[in-house]
Amino acid sequence: MGPRGGACDPDQADLDARAFSLDRFSITPALLRGGRELASLPLSEARLQDDARWPWIMLIPRRVGARELEHLTARDRAQLIEEQIAAGAAARAIGSALGRAVEKLNVAALGNIVPQLHVHVVGRRSDDPAWPGPVWGVGQAEPYAPADLDAAVAAASDVLAGWSFKRS
Amino acid sequence: MGPRGGACDPDQADLDARAFSLDRFSITPALLRGGRELASLPLSEARLQDDARWPWIMLIPRRVGARELEHLTARDRAQLIEEQIAAGAAARAIGSALGRAVEKLNVAALGNIVPQLHVHVVGRRSDDPAWPGPVWGVGQAEPYAPADLDAAVAAASDVLAGWSFKRS
Repeated sequence: MGPRGGACDPDQADLDARAFSLDRFSITPALLRGGRELASLPLSEARLQDDARWPWIMLIPRRVGARELEHLTARDRAQLIEEQIAAGAAARAIGSALGRAVEKLNVAALGNIVPQLHVHVVGRRSDDPAWPGPVWGVGQAEPYAPADLDAAVAAASDVLAGWSFKRS
Repeated sequence: MGPRGGACDPDQADLDARAFSLDRFSITPALLRGGRELASLPLSEARLQDDARWPWIMLIPRRVGARELEHLTARDRAQLIEEQIAAGAAARAIGSALGRAVEKLNVAALGNIVPQLHVHVVGRRSDDPAWPGPVWGVGQAEPYAPADLDAAVAAASDVLAGWSFKRS
């Protein structure tokens, strides 16, 4: 489930992607901090943020050097948005497992602070601590209680492990 | 952005399936306010937010009743992410036209306040008024000077009118 080498498929690579493929993929430490591995999806590593305030999943495409969506090929982009759907379902599963059903999903690629391309998929409720504003930069992460963290990881991993990705 | 309008109405959620088949597409007034038409893309209406603080484009898929990405088909989703790339290029063109080159793109589907599915594509700079935080809910929109608004609309419209969408 760790990072994979040779992330770029030469059949679909444009010039930029070929340049990326000279290096090996790794996740920048800032994206590893405060998170747990959930699944290695076809394109992205899926991680749970250890913040009990929101079911919060991070998708990190295994493409070396990518910082913007435009650095992915169209084929990878189509896969990424399917992985956003899967991560949304996983966030909903976390909310349900912990008795706080998700009411709205927030999906965002920002990267103002950590340049490596990553997509946030966050389950929101009208009684959450930032509603209706965005979650980024709000207060401090509140780590899950151990049993809740286990339940969240199990619920999300189950959804992601069984996900059948659609082709566009 | 815009006034709050019955976000996450459960009755509306229950009616989604019928709404898809019975209603005609329209843009909710909250998404029309403070914006200008840019282009009618294959899936979405592209609009410029009249806020000189950021080159800010809104994509509104022409799909009745859609509130989450999962309400689109996989084919529509692949198109939507291509339209995010086009809108990003248009936001960069606005920045360049106004002498404030975009350094980072922020792309987000939130919808906590306005339920109709819409995607924000925002050009960011490290000297902008919210950097590195998100732009949503920060201060008040600052309308463009008339000449700048014309320049922004022209720059973005040119990019979108000439865009060649890739297939995944």
